[in-house]
Amino acid sequence: MSDLTIARSVKLSPIVDVAERLGVSPDEIEPYGRYAAKLPLWLSAPDAPRRGKLILVSAMTPTPAGEGKTTATIGLTDALNRIGRRAVAVLREPSLGPVFGLKGGATGGGRAQVAPMDFINLHFTGDFAAVTAAHNLLAAVVDNDLHQRKSTHGLDLTSVRWKRVLDVNDRALRQIVVGLGGRTNGLPRESGFDITAASEVMAAMCLCDSLAHLKEKLGGIFVGRTQDKRPLYARDFNVHGAMTALLRDALKPNLAQTLEGNPAIIHLGPFANIAQGTNSVIATRAGLRLSDYVVTEAGFGFDLGGEKFLHIKCRTSGLAPAVVVLVATVRGLKYQGGAALEALHEPDLAALERGFDNLEKHLENVRRFGLEPVVAINRFTSDTSAELDWVQARCTAMGTASAISEAWAYGGAGAETLAHEVVAAVERATGHWQPLYALTDPIERKIETVATHIYGASDVRFLSKARADLRLIAELGLTQLPICIAKTQKSFSDDPTRLGRPRDFTLTIREVEIAAGAGFVIPIAGDLVRMPGLPAVPASERIDIDAEGNITGLS
Amino acid sequence: MSDLTIARSVKLSPIVDVAERLGVSPDEIEPYGRYAAKLPLWLSAPDAPRRGKLILVSAMTPTPAGEGKTTATIGLTDALNRIGRRAVAVLREPSLGPVFGLKGGATGGGRAQVAPMDFINLHFTGDFAAVTAAHNLLAAVVDNDLHQRKSTHGLDLTSVRWKRVLDVNDRALRQIVVGLGGRTNGLPRESGFDITAASEVMAAMCLCDSLAHLKEKLGGIFVGRTQDKRPLYARDFNVHGAMTALLRDALKPNLAQTLEGNPAIIHLGPFANIAQGTNSVIATRAGLRLSDYVVTEAGFGFDLGGEKFLHIKCRTSGLAPAVVVLVATVRGLKYQGGAALEALHEPDLAALERGFDNLEKHLENVRRFGLEPVVAINRFTSDTSAELDWVQARCTAMGTASAISEAWAYGGAGAETLAHEVVAAVERATGHWQPLYALTDPIERKIETVATHIYGASDVRFLSKARADLRLIAELGLTQLPICIAKTQKSFSDDPTRLGRPRDFTLTIREVEIAAGAGFVIPIAGDLVRMPGLPAVPASERIDIDAEGNITGLS
Repeated sequence: MSDLTIARSVKLSPIVDVAERLGVSPDEIEPYGRYAAKLPLWLSAPDAPRRGKLILVSAMTPTPAGEGKTTATIGLTDALNRIGRRAVAVLREPSLGPVFGLKGGATGGGRAQVAPMDFINLHFTGDFAAVTAAHNLLAAVVDNDLHQRKSTHGLDLTSVRWKRVLDVNDRALRQIVVGLGGRTNGLPRESGFDITAASEVMAAMCLCDSLAHLKEKLGGIFVGRTQDKRPLYARDFNVHGAMTALLRDALKPNLAQTLEGNPAIIHLGPFANIAQGTNSVIATRAGLRLSDYVVTEAGFGFDLGGEKFLHIKCRTSGLAPAVVVLVATVRGLKYQGGAALEALHEPDLAALERGFDNLEKHLENVRRFGLEPVVAINRFTSDTSAELDWVQARCTAMGTASAISEAWAYGGAGAETLAHEVVAAVERATGHWQPLYALTDPIERKIETVATHIYGASDVRFLSKARADLRLIAELGLTQLPICIAKTQKSFSDDPTRLGRPRDFTLTIREVEIAAGAGFVIPIAGDLVRMPGLPAVPASERIDIDAEGNITGLS
Repeated sequence: MSDLTIARSVKLSPIVDVAERLGVSPDEIEPYGRYAAKLPLWLSAPDAPRRGKLILVSAMTPTPAGEGKTTATIGLTDALNRIGRRAVAVLREPSLGPVFGLKGGATGGGRAQVAPMDFINLHFTGDFAAVTAAHNLLAAVVDNDLHQRKSTHGLDLTSVRWKRVLDVNDRALRQIVVGLGGRTNGLPRESGFDITAASEVMAAMCLCDSLAHLKEKLGGIFVGRTQDKRPLYARDFNVHGAMTALLRDALKPNLAQTLEGNPAIIHLGPFANIAQGTNSVIATRAGLRLSDYVVTEAGFGFDLGGEKFLHIKCRTSGLAPAVVVLVATVRGLKYQGGAALEALHEPDLAALERGFDNLEKHLENVRRFGLEPVVAINRFTSDTSAELDWVQARCTAMGTASAISEAWAYGGAGAETLAHEVVAAVERATGHWQPLYALTDPIERKIETVATHIYGASDVRFLSKARADLRLIAELGLTQLPICIAKTQKSFSDDPTRLGRPRDFTLTIREVEIAAGAGFVIPIAGDLVRMPGLPAVPASERIDIDAEGNITGLS
């Protein structure tokens, strides 16, 4: 059965009932359709009481085999509820780019899904659209400023760094020339589109405390410089109020449910390879206020989502995870050990052993932050007992708790062992995570720290554009910001073909984007781009709808 | 008091109560927030019973003074309900372009508004975002096809006519070059963005009967041609199913309410200068099924919205208005008669008399279609009794019913006289409207018919691009389609500075766009562009939000 078929076979609870299970009355939510709703912002006030324990789900380096991190997150939430703990999943919203591209949706799989799957994967409550609109309003205002030649700004056309965004995989928009066709069409200049998941507006929303805080952050977006090198920010164009107005409803976190009827808060969705990769502080705080256990995930491997979750999201908000669950699969480990994608169903202990190096490095990284990892082995039907036993034995030998999760096949019932291990780890946890770099470190040092300690690089190389960007960052007085490295998710290195645990490699920083409003800078490693492309056969070719409105082909 | 202040001072009914007033049970609607909801599609089945009378509200040629067509439409709906008739307003959704540009929102004004005003003017239920996503998915798939060099299609890069859309006023996007930066970024080619209100996807949604019909229409979108001149349509790229899936919820009409608690169905929003200018057939049918009187509007003057409402929307759907209300103002007539914008508050019977020519031509045009006009004079505080009496006397002399509407100041109570006149006209109405051109006429002839009979042009000139487009239309076998002329709204002619009733002018057709999926072709007159720009001081500079989420500056 497809994920969509399973999702449709389950009778969902009205969203008011799900809210009541969280202690939120029907009068306090705003429904969007029958099975989703906006939660009120006051739940997430920074000084509100928070009773929950935060569990971060991250993963080994992802492979084309699919590791099922979201599936494990949802299954663990359902399992915690089954063993008598009040737990809520706090997740990111899907982007339409991957839904119609290669990767598919982001609502879990099998018996461990959030629902309604098609509603969430398509437009949901419109948050991504609001981010797109607010982002592009600033772009239109900036180009209008150039066109109207407003002497008050004197914006230097060649200095403009603000691009546009769309929630689609569209490589042809990466690098464009706008303003062609003569005087009435504005001034010609080079620009481009990123995917909405990479928007600084999205990042600012994920890291703010309130509407007022968001407006302040948006006002601080760096747009470019005047002819005499004075920096101009969004607030200088008097547009941050209108942008915030556009985002009023999008800033409220969304409530949905798992297939087992447990609450799931799903809010915003920066990617972890090109952005900070985790849902909003507002959503996480709402979960911590309303529940005893909050299970949240950060995108891709722990080197990307996990590092940013801690250094960016937790550092700016004061949030702190009690434990980190690392999802791994026998198939993924064999792939990291060099097995071919087509051969992953065949037992191959040698490849498994080689590939375990990858998980081992991630486990070391978790411990580097002073946190305790629990390994969740997401079981696939082709996995043999020998392989599963070997992985668990290796974890035990490293002093790491592990459990096999069968959430895909059995939902929460398949993840009860994992839930018990996680509860035990939470109860054992004593310390607070520790950052690896200080905010006062120079940007280069911050990059070198993450590159060497987390990625395992031997050194970092800065290309000339990156060096120029670093000088600009220094001139703007932004060196105290944390970093959000954009890097391929497929390898610890910036080369997507280097699997396992690469050593003795140089991380190349091509350029450094400035996200002064969101509150970080974005060193871009290797040839990563912030607007994906479609594959030869996009998922959109499989997606269809019948006359009654039943959608097929979503995954 | 601002429109927003008035709107906030009214206590709205829960949307389930508004639905029940229309005879729709709470189980049948999908709420979006507390005060808006999606109505089910089955209400709009083409063969469903329809009991309502259709009243089309159009207007004289618009001026910068603002004529208040939407205000009159909402006031008339409230007034009909006050005099004991069951009436529903069926309107278009606002576009973010004008909201943040110059014109402002589209929810009426004063005491005659639909609500919640800020929710409707900003994202509402996400329909425009869905149109944007579906439109741009096709664009991404087409550019991906070029990039992947799919031999099955052999698409000729220079023949691609499908552009992209965004719901923003952004002149810099009108004409762009995409695909720059080398092989991995696709193939470089000229392209551009239109505003979402001009999207063929929007047009197709407005003219379809059902999801299946929409999918068929989207499949028929003309994309370009192969190297050997074979036409390629969206269905050849296997993307129309995914596009329709994206539009599943957006195709359902939205329910909101007037400030007096009467139902308003608000759905989709093509502009009337660059598209067909009227809400969806699906929304209008829902209104006609659920109510006795359906008051609907078509954009800008009757020469644009009115003509297209009849020749495109009514002809393809079988809908037929009983009467046409033409909104005029003393200020607007004086402006058409040459009075300066700053002097419109001063009595000026000479300018009024000259400007009445404009209204007279619109009245003649309504009668040309075999329909009876009723003039609604939207009263402003500076209007004198002498001016108002003069306009009414001229209408009477032409055998045309008229009434003064004070809906802005008094809501429905201010439009009761108008409501009585409209009911009387509906009861007098006997005939069916008649089209001015046959679908079998050549495209040139159709354009000439509308240009000479409706606009009052002496002749039509086709530039060379337009002639080439007409040859392509003939080759594609699309000559039987109706036309949707893109023309300035500010004049009957294609020159926005020619006010009143211009005579002896040539209408210049620059090019003819093909909207084979929507089911019409778009002759573009003069230098009209389908992506607006922002003014020197955009409305976005006035729009703001406070810490509690109260938005200010929307109008």
